[in-house]
Formats: sequence, structure tokens, C-alpha cells
Amino acid sequence: MKERIYTNEAINFKDGSTVKLLGWIHTIRELGKIIFWQLRDAKGIVQIVIINPKKRDDIELIKKIKNEFVVEIIGTISHNEKAPNGVEILLESVNIIAPAVSPLPFSVDDKTPANFDTRLKYRYLDIRRLKVHAIFKVRGAVIEGAREYFKSNDFTEIHTPKIISVGAEGGTTLFPVYYFGKEVYLAQSPQFYKQLAILGFEKVFEIAPFFRAEKSRTRRHLAESWGIDVEVAFANEQDLMDIQEDLLISIFKYVKKSCPNELKLYNIDLNIPKKPFPRITFHEAAKIALEHGIKVDLNSDLSAEAEAIVRSKFDSPFFITEFPLSCIAFYYGPHEKDPSLSYKLDLLFPGKNGLELSSGGRRCTDPNVLIERAKKAGINPDSLGWYLEMFKVGGIPPHSGFGMGIDRLVMMILRLPNVQEAVLCPRTIDILSP
Amino acid sequence: MKERIYTNEAINFKDGSTVKLLGWIHTIRELGKIIFWQLRDAKGIVQIVIINPKKRDDIELIKKIKNEFVVEIIGTISHNEKAPNGVEILLESVNIIAPAVSPLPFSVDDKTPANFDTRLKYRYLDIRRLKVHAIFKVRGAVIEGAREYFKSNDFTEIHTPKIISVGAEGGTTLFPVYYFGKEVYLAQSPQFYKQLAILGFEKVFEIAPFFRAEKSRTRRHLAESWGIDVEVAFANEQDLMDIQEDLLISIFKYVKKSCPNELKLYNIDLNIPKKPFPRITFHEAAKIALEHGIKVDLNSDLSAEAEAIVRSKFDSPFFITEFPLSCIAFYYGPHEKDPSLSYKLDLLFPGKNGLELSSGGRRCTDPNVLIERAKKAGINPDSLGWYLEMFKVGGIPPHSGFGMGIDRLVMMILRLPNVQEAVLCPRTIDILSP
Repeated sequence: MKERIYTNEAINFKDGSTVKLLGWIHTIRELGKIIFWQLRDAKGIVQIVIINPKKRDDIELIKKIKNEFVVEIIGTISHNEKAPNGVEILLESVNIIAPAVSPLPFSVDDKTPANFDTRLKYRYLDIRRLKVHAIFKVRGAVIEGAREYFKSNDFTEIHTPKIISVGAEGGTTLFPVYYFGKEVYLAQSPQFYKQLAILGFEKVFEIAPFFRAEKSRTRRHLAESWGIDVEVAFANEQDLMDIQEDLLISIFKYVKKSCPNELKLYNIDLNIPKKPFPRITFHEAAKIALEHGIKVDLNSDLSAEAEAIVRSKFDSPFFITEFPLSCIAFYYGPHEKDPSLSYKLDLLFPGKNGLELSSGGRRCTDPNVLIERAKKAGINPDSLGWYLEMFKVGGIPPHSGFGMGIDRLVMMILRLPNVQEAVLCPRTIDILSP
Repeated sequence: MKERIYTNEAINFKDGSTVKLLGWIHTIRELGKIIFWQLRDAKGIVQIVIINPKKRDDIELIKKIKNEFVVEIIGTISHNEKAPNGVEILLESVNIIAPAVSPLPFSVDDKTPANFDTRLKYRYLDIRRLKVHAIFKVRGAVIEGAREYFKSNDFTEIHTPKIISVGAEGGTTLFPVYYFGKEVYLAQSPQFYKQLAILGFEKVFEIAPFFRAEKSRTRRHLAESWGIDVEVAFANEQDLMDIQEDLLISIFKYVKKSCPNELKLYNIDLNIPKKPFPRITFHEAAKIALEHGIKVDLNSDLSAEAEAIVRSKFDSPFFITEFPLSCIAFYYGPHEKDPSLSYKLDLLFPGKNGLELSSGGRRCTDPNVLIERAKKAGINPDSLGWYLEMFKVGGIPPHSGFGMGIDRLVMMILRLPNVQEAVLCPRTIDILSP
């Protein structure tokens, strides 16, 4: 017998061709004496039609087969406009490759609802549902679209350590690791290391996990996330916004091109955002909030309420620039035009369900300012070790960078209600399994 | 003034063209009244020639500029066969963008030796050396070459959790993490999670860090490594070897095509290995060792000594198959033809300096055998939680997979003396910084 074909290839064969398929029994339906199986594989679903099995053995075997059994099907192609996808396969023979329990903990057809906790508990069933499956196809396309941008713009891919002895953003969200008798941490971001890497490679990116001991139970927080991290020598905060625009457009175009069926499942007509994205300063954002009666403390970050109002004013991704220096990480320095401001900027998705997608800016390269900034942030400059020494040794060009959340990006593209939906096996304060 | 050009682009301009470059002063050489700078950027090096600066200010400025200063150069293109790369730039003006200390902790020209500890301590200087720089260009090409294979063979990229509550390979090499009041671990491999993922996507890969509390101080061990992990539904151990061959060939071809200069720096004429790679069984390997007077216990892994002898018999990557069941992870089951053997196989690089590059095989899918195997390995089956339950719920096709070390692969391609050389900021029992 020849090679296996995938479900989506059946349409390419002529009526009467004999084909072999492998896959899972997605649904079973009986209509009088005819049985219909939907056979699912990684590429989709095709209908198998069973009319009048001849032998007693065959009848017994077919009766045994339940939902999610893994089977090998030999059958005959029959084009039929009424069948899903326009083609069905008349069963010639079937082999059970692996059984499954019956009934299943929940049904994997997309019609039967299941609550999110149950779905996560049995994630190995959940990812067989077409709509969940689609999320991870889109996720793959998001990363691939990002890489296409990096590849055609001469970035070097780097891998930075996830076990670190110095946190880039202070201690409150660090996970301690017991490392050969020492207490060290999981990296909250590759911040220090991507700054190191530009000294050899100028334009670098990393796609990797990062870890935050995030106690908040919200729709957008995880303890373990994957990010796209970028750092570029000789780039200022304006260049950084151009880069983020091009990156996001590359990602959206790639998803739109490679995932039409997945987007259709979510009824999403993906708009490619147009350059330049709107850019407002933090002070302008504060003014918008104030016009709606929300006061913003100009020395701290936007409150969730204020940010929501600002987001509601936009209908495309937009930047908020010049964050107050007092509310941001120590590795940003003061703005030339106003030392209470900074070169830090965020990229946000608009609307009620939008959120902050990336954070970054031009970095401080003056070791004396870094020492002062660290002290103000309650970080002992001595604890910064090699990072601070790097600036003293010098040869550090001006540079800028950002970190963009992959999980959040997938969540925004598919308009998922919770970022956990975008992660194969999410980690939060409550979830550790699978 | 126009856009910056990179050093490797200078050759494309006509004599007399005015260009702008940004970069680092790699070397300074005086020859009578002429000063030569080698200017380095991410793309390479070009010679800047300073003849007779006219103004007193210029002379002062030029004198100030030391090694590793970051500068902006305006100059005139002059093609000159005697210059490195056939072109040099006659200085018109220079601007200091960022200074560096003088003298530097060690010289970044590739001529002055520096010991590895010093190089690692100042990794931000070390990566400016051309030969070190080349390692990470090759590393980037290795990952890209792998992805080209996965993309053209319809694999889905996945991201699995690095914080886990169950180790796949027992407790001895797990790093404990303090997670919201619980003790959990860093993932030694994505083993359980890639097996979960094939149930939705059939063919999956992940490129991600993994963690092993490896106490051995050897040329090939790290506490944090990056791996290419693969798992394929409906694949047996034979298919798995085909996949690894194609993957490795794709990687080698990509490196050869995209890194000619980097390979030349290491005097490496990269041979693309030919299919099929030699395949010997563990018993055959044991026989080879025995012929050289090394006895092999057929119930444990090959000793380092025995493996070295076997490697010396090959001159291309090769597989050792059918490892004894008693010396391998519990998630492999017994071989049909002999229950003391397994479907586990390793891919090795040949020769005295070769090593094990990947490990994998066909997995056990029978929950009862898994329970028995876990018990024998001293793992309480209850602790396997969702993993064991997955096999009980069922619908699990036969599947195979492997994990291939990226750091080791780069080490082998460039014939580096130590795997630490292949990692931007390595982690070992002794190294935690930078």
C-alpha cells in the first residue's frame, strides 16, 4: 500500500482512487444503515462513509471504534458537493492503531462546551479541537512572520541565559532558583544580555521564555511567557518605533497569508496596520484621561483605568512615548528636553480589550547616571556587577530595544478572552499542570 | 549627510565617493606620518587612512581616539589592492560617539591571546573579536538551517513550559525553583510536553533552553543549554533516523551557504554528510569496543572510553541503535525482538573529539508498561500525574522523537575545544556571570 495522504489532500484525487489515511475519529454519526466518521489529522477533517460492511468481522470492528480512536483508513475517493470540503471517502477497510477511553473527559468536537479548567487539565484533548488547534497554528505563524522580518533586516539571533544572578527589574517578581548551593533567579527579561550582545552584533533578537512571579490573576498575566526581544545599536527611540511598526506589519502579513482558515474559524478579517502608527506622549495620554475625569499622577505609570480610556481613543496599534523617569526601570536615562521624562515607550493594542504589547526605549549608557538611577530604584549598584562594569569599560554606542509579548500578540490577533488560551501549557500562580 | 554604510559595502562604491560609517576602532597603527585605523562594525572591518589632518583640532581629536572607541567616520573611498578587502577610506572627519577605557582589560584584535576565564568575564569585549563573532553567526545559521527543514516539512513550532512539577528523567539533575510557595523544577527537556503536542499537531519542534544540574566539569557539559526538540506522530525509529539525517544536512548546507567567511576563519571546509548515515546497534558498538580490549556491560550505557573507540571507527555522523532498556529513561519501552533492548538511539559525531549530538527513539505508549518502567526507575507512578493519565485517556498514536544539542552542534561544526565557546554567556557549576 502506498504512502499515507492527509485529509486536506483528498480533494486532489480522482473519484475511485484508493487512498490511505491516518488520524483520529473526530465524530461518529449514524443515519439509518450508513455510518459517517469525521476523520481528523493535523491538516483538517474529512468524511468517511461506511455503507454496508460485508463481513461480520468488519461490523464488529466498526462497532468497537469510538471517538478519538487512532485509525488507519483505506478508502475510495468520492467527490460530493454535499460533503464537508466537497469530498468524502468510502470505507474499504479500517485498522485500529490506538484506542481511547469512552466516554472521554469532554468531547473534542467544537460544539460541546467545556470550561477552561477542564480543557487545561486535559490539554492533550483540548488541542484536538479545531478552534484550539488554530490558535497554535497562528502562534507558529506569528513567530515565523517575526523571523522573516529579522532575517531580511540582518538581525543576529541570540540565546541569552535564563539563570541569572542579577535581576534587571528588582526583586519583587523574581523566581528564586537553587543553583549548586547558591540562590539565583529566573530571568525576567534578557535586558542586560541583549545590551551585551549588540556590542558584537549591533542588531540582535531573541525569541525565548521569560519568567515573572506575577501574583495578579488577570486576563493578561502569566508566570512564564515567551517574548520577542530586540536591541539595536545606533538606534534611537524614533528608529525603534519604525522597527516595531515594520515587525508588526510583517507578522500580520504572514499570519494573514498563512492562516486563512484559522482566521476564518474566529471570524477575523485581519487588518494590516498602516505606518506610521499614532504616537502620543505620556503627557498627552494623561490629558486624554483627564478629559474623561481620570486624574493621572505624572510621576507614576498610567492606571489600568486611565490606560483603558486612552486605548478607547484609537483603532490601530499606537505608541505612548516619554514615560516619566520616576516610574520606569533604572536602565533608562533622563530625556534631554526634560529630565523628569525618559525615552521609554510602549506599544499598545487599541480598544476596550486592548493591552500593552511591548515596552522599550533608548537605554542609558552613562555609568554614573546608571549608578544614580539604580540607587533611586533601591538597587545596590554593587549588585549590578558586570553590567555596570560594561559601561565603565566602554565602547558602548547609543542603543534602543524592546520586548514584545508573543502570548499577548496571539491573544490580540485572535481576540481571545484570556492570554492563557494562547499558551500550550500556561503557568500562573494557580496553574502548574500539565 | 546620507545613510550610514557598513564596512563590507565600501567595496561597492566608486573611488572618490564620500561615505559615512559607524563602528568601533579595532586597531590603530602608525606608519611615519600616516595613521591606519581598522574600523569594525557588525559586518566586518575596513581600513581608514589618515594623512595629514589639516587643523590643530583634528590632530587633537585623532590623538584622543583609542581602541574600541565608537566613532562616526566621513571619508572618501579609495580602491587599493594592497588594503585588506581591496578598499580603504581616506578620512575626512571623525566624531567620537562613545569612548572606552585605555588600556582595555584585553585586546580584541585576534592576535593577542587571552585566557578563557578573562574572555568570559569581559564577554562584551570578547564577542568583538572576529573569531568569536564568527561563532555566533554560525550559531544563528544553525538554527535558521534547522528551521528551513521544519518549515518545508510541515512541522508546527511549539513553546513548552520550562517550569515543571514533574521531571522527565528523575531527580538528580533537576534545579529546584521556588514557585509561589511550592518547590518545582526547571525542565530538563520538553519530553512530556512535546508528546502532548503531537496529539494536536502530529509533527512538532521546539528550539528552547533546557536545564541540567550537571556537576561534571567537562568540555561538553553545561547547566543551561539550547536544544532542537522534535516529536513526530506515526513515526518509528527508522523514520526518526531519516528525519535527523535530513535535518542535519539542511543545517550543514545552510551554514556552508551563509557563513563562508566564518568557516574560513576556522579553516573549515564543511563536508555535507551523505545519507544514509552509518547505523550500528548497541551490541555491535560493544563488540567494536571489545575488539580493542574494552569490556562493555550490556546492561548499562557505553563508558566514555568505549564510546571514544566506537567513534574513532567512523568518519561521518552515525547512529547507535537499540540501547539496553535497563540504562535508559522510563518513557522508552522494550524492543519487540528482545525485551532487554529498546527503540532508543543516539546520533554521534565521529572521531576523537566527537560526541553524542542527539538522543531519542520510539516512545512507549502503553500505560501499564510505563507504570512498570517508572517503578523500576525509582519513580513513583503517582508523581507522573497528567503524563500517565494521558496514556490512559488514550488516542495516542505510536510516535518518536529526539533532542539535539545546539551548543554541541556549533562546537562540532567549528571544532571548538569546549562547548562553552559556543554559548554567549554559558552556565556551569562554576560560571554564573555575566
